[in-house]
Amino acid sequence: MEFTAEQIAKLLQGKVEGDKNIVVNCFSKIEEGKSGSLSFLANPKYTNYIYETEASIVLVNNDFVGQKEITSTLIRVEDSYKAIAQLLEIYNSITEKPSGIEKNVFIHKKAKTGKNIYVGAFAYIGKDAQIGDNVQIYPGVYVGNGVKIGDNSVIYPGVKIYYNTIIGKDCTIHAGSVIGADGFGFAPNGNEAFVKIAQIGNVVIEDNVEIGALVTIDRATLGSTIIRKGVKLDNHNHIAHNVEIGQNTVIAAQSGIAGTAKIGENCMFGGQVGIGPHVKIANGTKMSAQSGIANNIKKEDSILMGAPAFDIRDYHRSYIHFKNLDKIVKRLDELERQLGKK
Amino acid sequence: MEFTAEQIAKLLQGKVEGDKNIVVNCFSKIEEGKSGSLSFLANPKYTNYIYETEASIVLVNNDFVGQKEITSTLIRVEDSYKAIAQLLEIYNSITEKPSGIEKNVFIHKKAKTGKNIYVGAFAYIGKDAQIGDNVQIYPGVYVGNGVKIGDNSVIYPGVKIYYNTIIGKDCTIHAGSVIGADGFGFAPNGNEAFVKIAQIGNVVIEDNVEIGALVTIDRATLGSTIIRKGVKLDNHNHIAHNVEIGQNTVIAAQSGIAGTAKIGENCMFGGQVGIGPHVKIANGTKMSAQSGIANNIKKEDSILMGAPAFDIRDYHRSYIHFKNLDKIVKRLDELERQLGKK
Amino acid sequence: MEFTAEQIAKLLQGKVEGDKNIVVNCFSKIEEGKSGSLSFLANPKYTNYIYETEASIVLVNNDFVGQKEITSTLIRVEDSYKAIAQLLEIYNSITEKPSGIEKNVFIHKKAKTGKNIYVGAFAYIGKDAQIGDNVQIYPGVYVGNGVKIGDNSVIYPGVKIYYNTIIGKDCTIHAGSVIGADGFGFAPNGNEAFVKIAQIGNVVIEDNVEIGALVTIDRATLGSTIIRKGVKLDNHNHIAHNVEIGQNTVIAAQSGIAGTAKIGENCMFGGQVGIGPHVKIANGTKMSAQSGIANNIKKEDSILMGAPAFDIRDYHRSYIHFKNLDKIVKRLDELERQLGKK
Repeated sequence: MEFTAEQIAKLLQGKVEGDKNIVVNCFSKIEEGKSGSLSFLANPKYTNYIYETEASIVLVNNDFVGQKEITSTLIRVEDSYKAIAQLLEIYNSITEKPSGIEKNVFIHKKAKTGKNIYVGAFAYIGKDAQIGDNVQIYPGVYVGNGVKIGDNSVIYPGVKIYYNTIIGKDCTIHAGSVIGADGFGFAPNGNEAFVKIAQIGNVVIEDNVEIGALVTIDRATLGSTIIRKGVKLDNHNHIAHNVEIGQNTVIAAQSGIAGTAKIGENCMFGGQVGIGPHVKIANGTKMSAQSGIANNIKKEDSILMGAPAFDIRDYHRSYIHFKNLDKIVKRLDELERQLGKK
Repeated sequence: MEFTAEQIAKLLQGKVEGDKNIVVNCFSKIEEGKSGSLSFLANPKYTNYIYETEASIVLVNNDFVGQKEITSTLIRVEDSYKAIAQLLEIYNSITEKPSGIEKNVFIHKKAKTGKNIYVGAFAYIGKDAQIGDNVQIYPGVYVGNGVKIGDNSVIYPGVKIYYNTIIGKDCTIHAGSVIGADGFGFAPNGNEAFVKIAQIGNVVIEDNVEIGALVTIDRATLGSTIIRKGVKLDNHNHIAHNVEIGQNTVIAAQSGIAGTAKIGENCMFGGQVGIGPHVKIANGTKMSAQSGIANNIKKEDSILMGAPAFDIRDYHRSYIHFKNLDKIVKRLDELERQLGKK
Repeated sequence: MEFTAEQIAKLLQGKVEGDKNIVVNCFSKIEEGKSGSLSFLANPKYTNYIYETEASIVLVNNDFVGQKEITSTLIRVEDSYKAIAQLLEIYNSITEKPSGIEKNVFIHKKAKTGKNIYVGAFAYIGKDAQIGDNVQIYPGVYVGNGVKIGDNSVIYPGVKIYYNTIIGKDCTIHAGSVIGADGFGFAPNGNEAFVKIAQIGNVVIEDNVEIGALVTIDRATLGSTIIRKGVKLDNHNHIAHNVEIGQNTVIAAQSGIAGTAKIGENCMFGGQVGIGPHVKIANGTKMSAQSGIANNIKKEDSILMGAPAFDIRDYHRSYIHFKNLDKIVKRLDELERQLGKK
């Protein structure tokens, strides 16, 4: 698909500066801009690139003032970052979506499927599963018995969903994720070995949740592991049995949440964070990457770092001293010398 | 399936207090108990919930004494926690198990398969593979050439097992795990690039091992990577080439063990622990979450924390001072001032 | 396949000491050597095993001098470690490779496939995909629309490759890895929830890259996430959107690199390392396991440890004091007492 500067400006209610007939067919970053691509300048740190970029069109803010010659055609808009997000969204929505039922699928005769769905080859839909309207199930997905998937959700290749999992509307689950495997529950048998505790609960994922690739969300021992609406989970996250994650919480990659922990709403996790079992995290808590949290966080909107984690400013202050510990100990040695102890 | 209080009490050799004909068809946590469900009270911390729960039946210990009115029917047993585990086990064992060979499977004509097995659609069983009796192989599983799987083992959807892997009896491997991929072995070629070292060993998993979802266990360069009987591995674990894990060791999620490390028996790992290459860990070692271990642990039953890890009590003591380093340095400043140094 | 000591010595230009007709059919580690196996002694730490091993043949360096009786036949070579690597390579190259197109595959009629390829059962090759010569695509692999895979690359079972990904020649991707899933990009909608930013770039993997099992490499928002030639990624690595990894960099298991980070050439990562968003890492940087890096590393060939990471020797020095903080504070207490403050 190709668009002229004029067409794009109209779409964004912007103003063309330069060749209104110049044509683009893809997007680029301003520092990598090639002829035929559309780019944008939102972060002032990148301003220098606008004088060198080969992008045919650059979106800029209305108040942008160039300091040197610019060869690209400009489109001035109120907020160039929002404008590019808007364009990306449009581009995405007109991209070809897969549809229909491909050959070589397994759909149990007792499964119920909605209108206008896509089921890719080698996908498996078990007994009593319920698939909503407009759902996309990519190749190699496994949907266990009794699973429900809400309207418009997209399940990418190779996702495995165990029995009785419930997934809401407008959810996305990326490739290879595993939803509803057994929680990690074992009881000592008194003889140094362990006996498995049956895990007969399920996983409930509410609407508008996005789950990255290779994420695990374990089923509850009893009851449900619950992911509230609007939650975003990055790749390699691990959510253990009976965890609850509050709405609109965002968790970066490779973080893990142990069994029965309860995470508040609107929290933000950096990558590789670990939350201990039974821990409760207050709403709005922010955790720096690699934080470890073994006790409840009761104060809302705390910002934490370290393992065990505490206030991020205090952590940074302590860490500066940690880096200087050798000097600090030398000062202590000197004082002791002065006082005749060494 | 529905059961009356009387039926359950009989099963557990317990005593009904309340309506012996009341009926339940599922389990619930006491704090989330709904009418028609069976719950239990084992941890005294949850006692308050018994006065509010809507669970139709609650299992309690013989010595439980209510302080207020309770609407649920009670079943008194010697140990309510053990009783619920027993019920879960029974419930699980009567749940419908998949069986038979579904359409659209690949079973090599030189593979040997036992009695009463399940092979789900789109599963692949390679040349010379040997599948024991009562084995369940879910949809989309890949069993490479020469793989052996012992009786009663369950391989969940999408597990990938490379050639010559040996899996014992009564094992469980959850969805998406990868057993027997090449170890990470490269040698510098003298020119800043790396040459792969062929990985021609295998993986041996003994009996009664449970492996979570999305776990990797790499094949040995030479010889075998070995997981001894009774080991329990949680989701996202990484076990590198030539590692050996001693029997009944339990490893929580997202932990990683580098090449040729040897882990003792009855060890317990918290989540996100890292073990360095060639490290030996003594029997009974316990490692707190996020510990990092680069040197051998020789003393049995040590309890460790930190990176690098040391005795957990010493770690906690040091960490309290770490949090106070700013105050400690101010005390040092003050002493220096007093002694005329500042 | 069986080989005599004489055949092997000829291959390696070595010299037999003992029975030149003794036969071996597999490799073993010297400490686990069994009759019929070939082993080697390269690391002097293992010298004691040569007097006990049951391996039929042991490769040793020319300058090896035995201190006790040795029952194995020896083959003396210039460098026993290199010799064994050479043998493993030969062994590997003569191992049977899969070939041909198995039944029950999905190959889109608009896909282009090269000569002498292998496509395993239940593999999916999308529209406009281009598969080079001698490529091996194992069972259950998903190759999205427009994906290109270069000659001689091997894609192991269950790998999922999203649309428009480009993979070079002589690459290996192990089972279950996910290439090209959406980057983790969300913008606040002003109402505590998040709106997805469309991810329309792709992933480019250059020649001779090896990727472990269960690795994720996300597609770029715009432009490409780039893995340069010769890079080696271990299991469970996470590479976020718009990252670039310089050539011949080696990353151990469970490490994560956040969005838009740029990693230099010839870097080495220990396991479980985390790199923050937008961070630039200079060429030749080495990072110890579990390091966390939030700021640019500008000095080439730095060796780092800690979170946040700094020079590894300084880290070790500080960490020794950290372990002794309790004693250090007691010394401070004593000084204050002496000066009449307590």
